[in-house]
Amino acid sequence: MDFERMWRDLEPLGRSAASGGYFRQPFGAAERECMAWYVEECVRRGLSLEHDGNGNAIAWWRPEGVTGKGVVTGSHLDSVLDGGAFDGPLGVVSGLAAYDVLRDRGLTPSRPIGFGVFVEEEGSRFGLACLGSRLATGAITPAAARELRDREGVALLDAMASTGLEPALGPSRLLDEIGTFVELHVEQGRDLVLRDRPIGVASAIWPHGRYRFEVEGEANHAGTTRMEDRRDPMLTYAMTALAANKQARLGEGPRATFGRLQVEPNGTNAVPSKVTAWLDARCATEAELDELIATITRLGEDRAGRDGTSLSMTPESVSPAVDFDAALAGRLSESLDAAPIIPTQAGHDAGILSATGIPTAMLFVRNPTGVSHSPAEFAETADCIAGVTALADVLEELAG
Amino acid sequence: MDFERMWRDLEPLGRSAASGGYFRQPFGAAERECMAWYVEECVRRGLSLEHDGNGNAIAWWRPEGVTGKGVVTGSHLDSVLDGGAFDGPLGVVSGLAAYDVLRDRGLTPSRPIGFGVFVEEEGSRFGLACLGSRLATGAITPAAARELRDREGVALLDAMASTGLEPALGPSRLLDEIGTFVELHVEQGRDLVLRDRPIGVASAIWPHGRYRFEVEGEANHAGTTRMEDRRDPMLTYAMTALAANKQARLGEGPRATFGRLQVEPNGTNAVPSKVTAWLDARCATEAELDELIATITRLGEDRAGRDGTSLSMTPESVSPAVDFDAALAGRLSESLDAAPIIPTQAGHDAGILSATGIPTAMLFVRNPTGVSHSPAEFAETADCIAGVTALADVLEELAG
Repeated sequence: MDFERMWRDLEPLGRSAASGGYFRQPFGAAERECMAWYVEECVRRGLSLEHDGNGNAIAWWRPEGVTGKGVVTGSHLDSVLDGGAFDGPLGVVSGLAAYDVLRDRGLTPSRPIGFGVFVEEEGSRFGLACLGSRLATGAITPAAARELRDREGVALLDAMASTGLEPALGPSRLLDEIGTFVELHVEQGRDLVLRDRPIGVASAIWPHGRYRFEVEGEANHAGTTRMEDRRDPMLTYAMTALAANKQARLGEGPRATFGRLQVEPNGTNAVPSKVTAWLDARCATEAELDELIATITRLGEDRAGRDGTSLSMTPESVSPAVDFDAALAGRLSESLDAAPIIPTQAGHDAGILSATGIPTAMLFVRNPTGVSHSPAEFAETADCIAGVTALADVLEELAG
Repeated sequence: MDFERMWRDLEPLGRSAASGGYFRQPFGAAERECMAWYVEECVRRGLSLEHDGNGNAIAWWRPEGVTGKGVVTGSHLDSVLDGGAFDGPLGVVSGLAAYDVLRDRGLTPSRPIGFGVFVEEEGSRFGLACLGSRLATGAITPAAARELRDREGVALLDAMASTGLEPALGPSRLLDEIGTFVELHVEQGRDLVLRDRPIGVASAIWPHGRYRFEVEGEANHAGTTRMEDRRDPMLTYAMTALAANKQARLGEGPRATFGRLQVEPNGTNAVPSKVTAWLDARCATEAELDELIATITRLGEDRAGRDGTSLSMTPESVSPAVDFDAALAGRLSESLDAAPIIPTQAGHDAGILSATGIPTAMLFVRNPTGVSHSPAEFAETADCIAGVTALADVLEELAG
């Protein structure tokens, strides 16, 4: 199998020399290079490529006479800003390497097998995670997607067109051919480390969302304005960020993070006029998530009242809980030497597909530190190879 | 006098349609338009323009036979990001209008009178306030200035060269001709409102500084990383910002503001790896300022210890207290109907010049709300006209 060679080919694409992290934003140069690499690898294997108008693709292994819906494995090639090498690409590379394994085993599949890539899974450019799979499944309308802008104000359609694509947003015929979907992904926690197992199977994705907090105050001179005369939105934000952390820590496992911020005018000697901050929050149940957001918002509003500022909260995207097909997870776990079945707090294209009723499963590959969305994200090569073998076993089990 | 016409001419330059505020960053298009306007107004009055290699200029009214050091009035044309119309331009326009008044009075000055503009007073582009006057007086070395970069990484010399200037940084011969300096400025507080007086005279500038706080943590996935496993620099920053506000409010009048922030990687679904924040702080005495900074830094470091992050503080620029020439202030106050003599917390080019031993004074024009460094910055036209008359009186008193 070609796993290590493929991994080396992808390694330099979009990598920052300063941080060692990846900047593979959708329809940007680095991510397009990754897509070109994917197309080349598919062509090299004689797979039959199909694209949709959203930027997604599936490459089919469809031996003569084999028709009907197929088993598809896939993931994504985009990264968060300054992200790691594994989140996304590990699934794509492992799929192609699993093809090599199955071919070497002499398998002729009885069902088509597809190797897919979904676009803008991280939402790092247009703000909405799983954009490609959401468009393909109809979870977001083309009209809503046309309103999306990146931080520079570039519209999604313009970004797509600038790469030479001819966008045709909306439900994708690629999905009609997916009978079963399996996404392999690096684990983003340390569950498998604690269990001393290289491979796991997903049970569920926690409900999660992105919420925009806008705090408006009044710009003023940082030197001459008396402290008591200010309406400083930075203070309201700071208190809200600390409150979010505290509330998450009070619960059983909730996550609440302010990782993105925009300050206006962002000048050293001016009290800001406005602070916009994005909260990422996740809980085991939707009721817990709703309560967490309500509490953080109320605490922020209380502080805004004391600061003379105003705070508004807008949910930008909220993803309900996903329970993966339990029978399928059980079957895969069994065929993988009783691999542990574990939940995740991270959203994935597999979750979007599962919500449409497609039987869907995920495999996780052990991550020694649990770190992800960071240049430090890592998996041992031996575990990656184990992941490829497991994926090949699963594809053979489902389509052999 | 031409005050209102000149004010209207400047009004649209660099104004944001969205906020109504000004973006007149040095060596940018809008600020260069303002400089071109200044040159045109000087030429129109037959004044004799002299530039230095730092981007500063003085236009001289030097009747035949009048030699020696002159009385110079001046201010700046650059703005903070999204600033007001008055901070800077009011002093430049008032100087030229005062010339008109004196000419109409039939004055032939016995000393030269100059009308000056200093560049990058706000430090909004290269981070160092009063850059033009600091270079001219030697308060910053050319070598240090050459290291300055704007937020896009453009070096000062490159920014200057891009406008067609031929930079020659360093001590300026313009200063050799300044016998006395008087800067007129919109008040940046409400002292004159409370005293019900349109014009005031400055006593002193508080010591003040800019301090860069860098908090380093560890990037990680916002969903999958347990709260207790994080090293989140946003929390350390948020606590430090609240502590700065609280410490300033505990004292007698200190100011502490975090108005500028940079978050890395600034992605919604990643715990940040680093937060860089700039503190602007001002106190009545240098001892108080030192203590305030030490306390805020210590509180930030304490929190960093609890967050598993590290915090470092670097002073970027610290300006000592400036006491303006008391005899000169007294004389001007007397000639202006006992105008009140009041301190300010804001730095000015007048402060930099005063520190070199040039007898220096400032006039303030009443600001009804006290708001400045904001689109809402304002002064009544009647008060501006009163300022022009006061400045004309002062120039006649000193150079008549």
